[in-house]
Amino acid sequence: MSHSRGRLYVISGPSGTGKGTICKEILKDIGNEFSVSMTTREPREGELHGREYFFVSHEEFTENISKNNFLEYATVFDNYYGTPKDIVLKKLDKGRNVILDIDVQGGLQVREAMPEAVLIFLLPPSLAELRRRLENRGTETPEKIEKRLSKAVDEIKFIGEYDYMVINNDLETAVDNVRSIMKAEASRIPEKVLPIIRQYEQEQKGE
Amino acid sequence: MSHSRGRLYVISGPSGTGKGTICKEILKDIGNEFSVSMTTREPREGELHGREYFFVSHEEFTENISKNNFLEYATVFDNYYGTPKDIVLKKLDKGRNVILDIDVQGGLQVREAMPEAVLIFLLPPSLAELRRRLENRGTETPEKIEKRLSKAVDEIKFIGEYDYMVINNDLETAVDNVRSIMKAEASRIPEKVLPIIRQYEQEQKGE
Repeated sequence: MSHSRGRLYVISGPSGTGKGTICKEILKDIGNEFSVSMTTREPREGELHGREYFFVSHEEFTENISKNNFLEYATVFDNYYGTPKDIVLKKLDKGRNVILDIDVQGGLQVREAMPEAVLIFLLPPSLAELRRRLENRGTETPEKIEKRLSKAVDEIKFIGEYDYMVINNDLETAVDNVRSIMKAEASRIPEKVLPIIRQYEQEQKGE
Repeated sequence: MSHSRGRLYVISGPSGTGKGTICKEILKDIGNEFSVSMTTREPREGELHGREYFFVSHEEFTENISKNNFLEYATVFDNYYGTPKDIVLKKLDKGRNVILDIDVQGGLQVREAMPEAVLIFLLPPSLAELRRRLENRGTETPEKIEKRLSKAVDEIKFIGEYDYMVINNDLETAVDNVRSIMKAEASRIPEKVLPIIRQYEQEQKGE
């Protein structure tokens, strides 16, 4: 059988759920790639165009918006950030899986733009545990932690738009669950099954 | 969270694909059970009612048909064989997964009776390999092998009705794939997400 198309995976979840760590693990697997975002913000020292981001002008970004070339985009502090559709599609065509580590608002945009994307929601075992993890970072004021917790509950309200949920109780199990989801998705019967049937039929005739 | 409902898995595939062996492996996992079929055939020596089969009269079987109490049933050599719905439902309610090792015709009946069932199609790597395996059994005449091969191709034509396909190239990988599918299905976001959201909301209020 010829190589099959890759799949687009969105991994979302409240801050402190371990999203970044899990994505990093998954990206170690062969065939999985992340997508380089486009942004209007200035490159920082050491950042390379095409590696950390595609650094573009405000004009170029808005042109891409009007051409409908974003799977999702958002504004953060007057700067645009977005996932270019053409780049993702090229990777999928080559049979690579693309992993997007984005927030729920971005996930919902991807769902609209590409309904066949697979959306995974990472959950903390409990709010108390999420609080503990945020406190352990030692970088956040109590006020900021409260904000994050209430934002977490707001994000979880959109869980029904996602396909899978993975509770990050311990990292190893959570990564294993995400890998199982990806393996299962790769085993899904495609919409067009004729090539599969033809393969066995031709072998039968050819024998 | 309270325990979630189990899932019904149908595993089908041409004879010689290793269906029986894979089911046996999967049934070793905690939470997975098979379902005892009902039949009108006579019990053989050593067979126990409720263990190998539920042995019932022709009348009792047809009564169950008219009560719509079969997920699937078939006639083989004048005898009926069927999967009783009520028994499967009880297991699912207890949170157990039920594994059905049935042919494609049975699988299609289950799809009708319980659309949420998960249907897995086992494929041989090739017809040539399937032929080799059937020949290695040493129990089948060349004529019978030809019949099995052409039946295999006929069955594969229904693959589009199934959810997943697993190519049994080597047993370990195939079993691992089926396990991944089951893990992924257990991570699926349920239709009703309110209990999940409520859990985190209540914790937030309770804090």
